[in-house]
Amino acid sequence: MHRTKVRVVEDALDANDTIARANRADFDGASVSVVNLMSAPGAGKTALLERVLARNLDGLRVGVLEGDVQGSFDADRLSLLHVPVTQLNTDPGFGGECHLDANMVRSALPKMPLDDIDLLVIENVGNLVCPAEFRVGEDARAMVCSVTEGEDKPLKYPLMFRTCSLVVVNKVDLLPHLDFDLDHFFENLDAVNPGVDRMLVSARTGEGVDAFRDWLVEVAARV
Amino acid sequence: MHRTKVRVVEDALDANDTIARANRADFDGASVSVVNLMSAPGAGKTALLERVLARNLDGLRVGVLEGDVQGSFDADRLSLLHVPVTQLNTDPGFGGECHLDANMVRSALPKMPLDDIDLLVIENVGNLVCPAEFRVGEDARAMVCSVTEGEDKPLKYPLMFRTCSLVVVNKVDLLPHLDFDLDHFFENLDAVNPGVDRMLVSARTGEGVDAFRDWLVEVAARV
Repeated sequence: MHRTKVRVVEDALDANDTIARANRADFDGASVSVVNLMSAPGAGKTALLERVLARNLDGLRVGVLEGDVQGSFDADRLSLLHVPVTQLNTDPGFGGECHLDANMVRSALPKMPLDDIDLLVIENVGNLVCPAEFRVGEDARAMVCSVTEGEDKPLKYPLMFRTCSLVVVNKVDLLPHLDFDLDHFFENLDAVNPGVDRMLVSARTGEGVDAFRDWLVEVAARV
Repeated sequence: MHRTKVRVVEDALDANDTIARANRADFDGASVSVVNLMSAPGAGKTALLERVLARNLDGLRVGVLEGDVQGSFDADRLSLLHVPVTQLNTDPGFGGECHLDANMVRSALPKMPLDDIDLLVIENVGNLVCPAEFRVGEDARAMVCSVTEGEDKPLKYPLMFRTCSLVVVNKVDLLPHLDFDLDHFFENLDAVNPGVDRMLVSARTGEGVDAFRDWLVEVAARV
């Protein structure tokens, strides 16, 4: 039973990569850079985007694809900033999946204003496991990790931390009130993804978010 | 493609329920009560168990089944308390799954000292989506939700909040430093699971954990 399951999973991942490449080609055709933004539930992806998108990004036109199991709470928040937001729910239609995959993103392409944006931020479903397994056609992957989650997370969810080229450490305004050991966290991070880019931010106070804004601008400039 | 996928998922869930019933029968045969404990990554399941298991639970003999994708960090922490802990990793062997299912728990049964415990706490993989979909043979489900995760989580992950008979709200020591609106959170909770049992705790300070200890004792007494 397990061997069958592993084979089915491998086939599914191969199929996913094929569709991810088709997405990539469509993004390239529209000259759109794409960031896949991931985190655990409540780590602050949306709050970070609210901070970053409230100001002009060097004239960059940004759109957001908002991935959730249900509802449109985050999309509603971001829409207030007059950013074009497309909602993509995994339930109904995709079995309530705990992640976005290339096919789901492909299904949302016709609804996205690709010709009117330069950068697409895909806010994935809050989950540290499966989102890391599915390429969706992105140029870069970033994750948000909150200091309230504990120092051990890179070791417990290594694929997620390994697959990202940027780790945004959020909620640093809470550090004085926590037992969180930042050095220990970075040791664990380097154990699974040595030297990966990292930045300390507080989406709540705005501290450090300029660095994430600059990173987005830099990703968009790569194309 | 989607219809096929939904059918495969439904078949898998039916098969899971059959195995969950077999687990249930084995737990009953050994007179062991079982709690399935779930949360997002870093919400504090292990810290809560550390607090609760550091003291005697009315003579109750407690064992823990520790579910993780990789590693044994939480099991190592709990072992220090001289609690019998069994590690169950979803990688390797179960494709790195983001949740425990009945078959995985079944595979771990021979390693668990069922004849020497009265209560088994299954600490599920940190994830607010898929763990809620898979019964493993438990008597009761509880979840830990941290106040740092935001008020919207019941609305964004309704199945998880709906499927539990207890919601433990953790990290309340941080409330003075957050914008978290507890009343708003409870409104959202009641919107998906009206009147569900809830308790406020801080695994860090010990505040309120006696209520969770009492709840575990009460679940064990039901058998």
